[in-house]
Amino acid sequence: MKISLPDGSVIEAAVNSTVADVAASISEGLLRNAVCGKVNGELVDLSHVLTEDCEVKILTLKDKEGLNVYRHTTAHVLAQAVKNIFPTSKLAIGPTVDNGFYYDIEFKTPITRDDLPKIENEMKEIIKSDLPIERLVYSRQDALKIFRDFSEPYKTELINDLPKDSVISFYKQGDFMDLCRGPHLPSTGKIKAFKLTSITGAYWRGNEKNKMLTRIYGTAFEKKSELEEYLTALEEAKKRDHNKLGRDLGIFMTEEVIGQGLPILMPKGAKILQILSRFVEDEEEKRGFMITKTPNMAKNDLYRISGHWDHYRDKMFIIGDENSPEAMALRPMTCPFQYQIYKNGLKSYRELPCRYSETATEFRNEASGEMHGLIRVRQFTLSDGHIVCTPEQVEGEFKRCLDLSYYFLECLGMRNDVSFRFSKRGKNKAKYIDNDKAWNETEALMKKILDDIGLNYVEADDEAAFYGPKLDVQIKNVYGKEDTLITIQLDFAAAHSFDMTYVDENGDKQYPFVIHRSSIGCYERTLALLIEKYAGAFPLWMCPEQVRIMSLTDRTIDYAEEIAASLRQAGIRANTDIRSEKIGYKIREAQMEKIPYMIIVGDKEKEEKTLSVRHRKDGDIGSFSLKDFTAKVVEEDRTKKIF
Amino acid sequence: MKISLPDGSVIEAAVNSTVADVAASISEGLLRNAVCGKVNGELVDLSHVLTEDCEVKILTLKDKEGLNVYRHTTAHVLAQAVKNIFPTSKLAIGPTVDNGFYYDIEFKTPITRDDLPKIENEMKEIIKSDLPIERLVYSRQDALKIFRDFSEPYKTELINDLPKDSVISFYKQGDFMDLCRGPHLPSTGKIKAFKLTSITGAYWRGNEKNKMLTRIYGTAFEKKSELEEYLTALEEAKKRDHNKLGRDLGIFMTEEVIGQGLPILMPKGAKILQILSRFVEDEEEKRGFMITKTPNMAKNDLYRISGHWDHYRDKMFIIGDENSPEAMALRPMTCPFQYQIYKNGLKSYRELPCRYSETATEFRNEASGEMHGLIRVRQFTLSDGHIVCTPEQVEGEFKRCLDLSYYFLECLGMRNDVSFRFSKRGKNKAKYIDNDKAWNETEALMKKILDDIGLNYVEADDEAAFYGPKLDVQIKNVYGKEDTLITIQLDFAAAHSFDMTYVDENGDKQYPFVIHRSSIGCYERTLALLIEKYAGAFPLWMCPEQVRIMSLTDRTIDYAEEIAASLRQAGIRANTDIRSEKIGYKIREAQMEKIPYMIIVGDKEKEEKTLSVRHRKDGDIGSFSLKDFTAKVVEEDRTKKIF
Repeated sequence: MKISLPDGSVIEAAVNSTVADVAASISEGLLRNAVCGKVNGELVDLSHVLTEDCEVKILTLKDKEGLNVYRHTTAHVLAQAVKNIFPTSKLAIGPTVDNGFYYDIEFKTPITRDDLPKIENEMKEIIKSDLPIERLVYSRQDALKIFRDFSEPYKTELINDLPKDSVISFYKQGDFMDLCRGPHLPSTGKIKAFKLTSITGAYWRGNEKNKMLTRIYGTAFEKKSELEEYLTALEEAKKRDHNKLGRDLGIFMTEEVIGQGLPILMPKGAKILQILSRFVEDEEEKRGFMITKTPNMAKNDLYRISGHWDHYRDKMFIIGDENSPEAMALRPMTCPFQYQIYKNGLKSYRELPCRYSETATEFRNEASGEMHGLIRVRQFTLSDGHIVCTPEQVEGEFKRCLDLSYYFLECLGMRNDVSFRFSKRGKNKAKYIDNDKAWNETEALMKKILDDIGLNYVEADDEAAFYGPKLDVQIKNVYGKEDTLITIQLDFAAAHSFDMTYVDENGDKQYPFVIHRSSIGCYERTLALLIEKYAGAFPLWMCPEQVRIMSLTDRTIDYAEEIAASLRQAGIRANTDIRSEKIGYKIREAQMEKIPYMIIVGDKEKEEKTLSVRHRKDGDIGSFSLKDFTAKVVEEDRTKKIF
Repeated sequence: MKISLPDGSVIEAAVNSTVADVAASISEGLLRNAVCGKVNGELVDLSHVLTEDCEVKILTLKDKEGLNVYRHTTAHVLAQAVKNIFPTSKLAIGPTVDNGFYYDIEFKTPITRDDLPKIENEMKEIIKSDLPIERLVYSRQDALKIFRDFSEPYKTELINDLPKDSVISFYKQGDFMDLCRGPHLPSTGKIKAFKLTSITGAYWRGNEKNKMLTRIYGTAFEKKSELEEYLTALEEAKKRDHNKLGRDLGIFMTEEVIGQGLPILMPKGAKILQILSRFVEDEEEKRGFMITKTPNMAKNDLYRISGHWDHYRDKMFIIGDENSPEAMALRPMTCPFQYQIYKNGLKSYRELPCRYSETATEFRNEASGEMHGLIRVRQFTLSDGHIVCTPEQVEGEFKRCLDLSYYFLECLGMRNDVSFRFSKRGKNKAKYIDNDKAWNETEALMKKILDDIGLNYVEADDEAAFYGPKLDVQIKNVYGKEDTLITIQLDFAAAHSFDMTYVDENGDKQYPFVIHRSSIGCYERTLALLIEKYAGAFPLWMCPEQVRIMSLTDRTIDYAEEIAASLRQAGIRANTDIRSEKIGYKIREAQMEKIPYMIIVGDKEKEEKTLSVRHRKDGDIGSFSLKDFTAKVVEEDRTKKIF
């Protein structure tokens, strides 16, 4: 029997050798580090028996898939430990996720964070026992019987939902057995370093109509040192988590009576959005965009033309009876509204490209389990623009869009934090507008543009907009979760659906192309990422308060006010703290609020007409004249300095 | 029998004298000019018979009520003329309105504007015949029979809807008879000058589910010269009508597929709104307001607390099933959202007043017959603010609000266009929050503040907000129709409903007062009024395009671009027109677009480094250096000059 290895070499093995045998035949070290194997592209256990010629790869913890198997086995150990301590608990699902795993479990009496150490101890016992892990395959009938006996209703439901021809496999370690596709480690003793990290609620199958289960998160690493490093990073991430820090800093809040996914931007957050959106509007105007202000809702008639009614309705908020001819919907996008402006009056090729942009409020009916702080919300603000242009202009306009986004990303200090995804239709055609020829041509056009630019991108199927392919500018949050920040999309369908035309040089009617684009992303999401990136210490140009002037005594209140007035005159956002509090207290407070510059003025400064200046990061930076300090801050603001 | 006259004198009259007899006994001139009478405050015909001591006033066309009677009779003449020409038409209602009257009529075949002269001629015949007008009273049964015979279904419906004990009166002129409370002129010949002004569609009873009728508008005056003056003014008003001019200038548009009351602000309109709202936000910030950005919708829970669910639901757009606990609604006001920010964290008296403001999008489900251009819409943008303050601060804060609105009105050039209305609860208590004591106290407080300021205001019952009295800043549109532009409201209920509190100097919990206020009004409505006031030629500071530079030949394109770049650098909104068109054509176009300054540059200007400047109103204003012209425009912009 011939075994092809990843390096191209081929080795001989006896029929019915296991994957572990193959590993051993390569090297003893490899066998020791082996976690599982990959046979002809399929993940399998080390105990998997080989019966014919095949390609085999031995996976270790250096491979992402190997690490996932290691963590998945840890999830089974968690489940076993929970069942040992809480025999009445019911197991649901326990997959791996980025950086770890979780298990959703129904407890008779809900447990808390305080129960985690006890569970961890039980897990350690199971690991110490080094129980062999065995794969078993059952018929559907037998599988159902097992879980009926174990009284595991969620597992029963999972089996019932499996396709008729599924192989139903179990993994058994000691007297614990779990439904699982595998593969797994050969024994529990292989787990070296793990930790249960948090506990939250989660609806069965993510549906709020189902029962709320308890989700226990954990992670596992090859080495203790790696685990500790990860946990330290996690602690650091938690400190930066916008969903906590943003609230602590008074940037945003949420309220149960208002509803999920509808954050309130408090004065500091609202001010940052004002600063960002004015900057974006002004820059876009400079680059030839025309500002619009279009309604937030429309009759279903509009969305029927645009395709949203057919392809996007489940994500829209409907006003009135959905089946009534008068039904309206809140807009999930601005496109069909800006098209109306284009359609107002005959257009000549001389007027193209028409670039429209709006600081637009948009609404998406996200499922309740999906919402997260400012990152995934039901109402958001998007710098939403549409460019109507001739086919010849598409490439140039696309590049201009990307260039604009690069500029904004640079100003935010995020230019190096993003990656690019070319999102295509893929195989699930039902979700998309039905026009194979147009899809193929437009995807080819976009690929050509991206390759011309020399962009380093990944391709992704089934991630396109329903009307065309798109380039997504991707970014990861503080926990490593990736989201789309900015998108530039090609649309071959809109001009035809909306009968948008122009008259070409020969006097003939032509259909233009449409580019959909956001330039800085959804402001709420961008704000969340900025909070996390800078841990709340934003670059000066976007700080709601740039300078705080503190009086050392009541005698210097007038001088503090005088400085503040002068700074404001120069366009600097400056406030005073003239309370009769100790200066140390005032500084600590300003430091907590991450104000870039603190000015302390006592009798000496007043007399000498100077300012004692502290920077939130560098501490005391010495004495300045008002003129020099003003020039310094104005320059830092003007150049949008990132540090 | 004693007749008391308005001047306090008392005259004797025989029992069964008519009002006309009383007029005659005062002076023959008065009888000649008399239109109707007022007996003990009730309007009556001149033929009305007096049977006991009473107060009598003789009304002429100098009295508004007298003029209305005159116009109402003209409406009957219109109806008679229509029935003469179109015997199968069905009459609905024919009331007077500001500046005239209308009659709603169902025609078998709809008529057009072109039919109006024919109807006017028939009306002239009826007037020439000088038919006496007679009042007749019938039993309900007889009245119904009459209209059954006449085959007038709308009149039958009106009678059926009258209260059981109503006196059912008719007015008869020649062989025409109409249901009417009266009074009327004694004969048709009294009408001297009238005109049918327009024709539109109108639903029976204003309900879009009913049949669409034809509404014929007309007016009547005492003298031909007055009528002509009015018609000239009306023509002028039509030219300024924002609903026409705003569209012609490319400021806004509407689209059937989007829906009624949802105007689209095109680039020019959106730019004006951006200019206005940035100005307002900045000025409010200077005056101590904190900017917020709150969601446009919330769960019904929030509106139940605020009282909107009980008192305002029919004006709200509901998302989802109204009866579901998850029902949400689009906000009609920002108040309950900004309150959540106040409630975030314990407040000390030292932090009050808290002033919140937002350029807020709001939604009201206006009835379809009510919507009008940018003045009455379903989605609008309001500079919506709320001040939470101690009872002692109310007066000062109220005055600050008024002061701010004065400032904005001055910048808009509208300071002298407004009047003030003190809007109170009145008798219809069911519509308002139930708390007599608080209503009485708060209305008294507001009256005291208004009187202290020495404001010249009218009082209006049943115009308050449901939570308290308000001061409305009223303004008339180009046709004389009055609307509210700005409002400042006192709210005694909100702090209690939302449990908003503060800790006073003694450490005790107290309930603050809330002031609701808009500062510049609803932006869309303000824009409409600005279009009408300036006939589109806005003050320079709010013009989307302030200067247009036109090249005389292709040789001066570079110079035109150079000037534009320099002006833009100085913050001036400048564009170029470098097309190869005749200069006269370019100027005419800029003039039509009401661009304040036009710069024409030819070879001479390029060589001499000068600008030839035209002003949209003053025409050629001579030659300028770039520096002087820039300074001139910057100063006009900075000082917000109105001319």
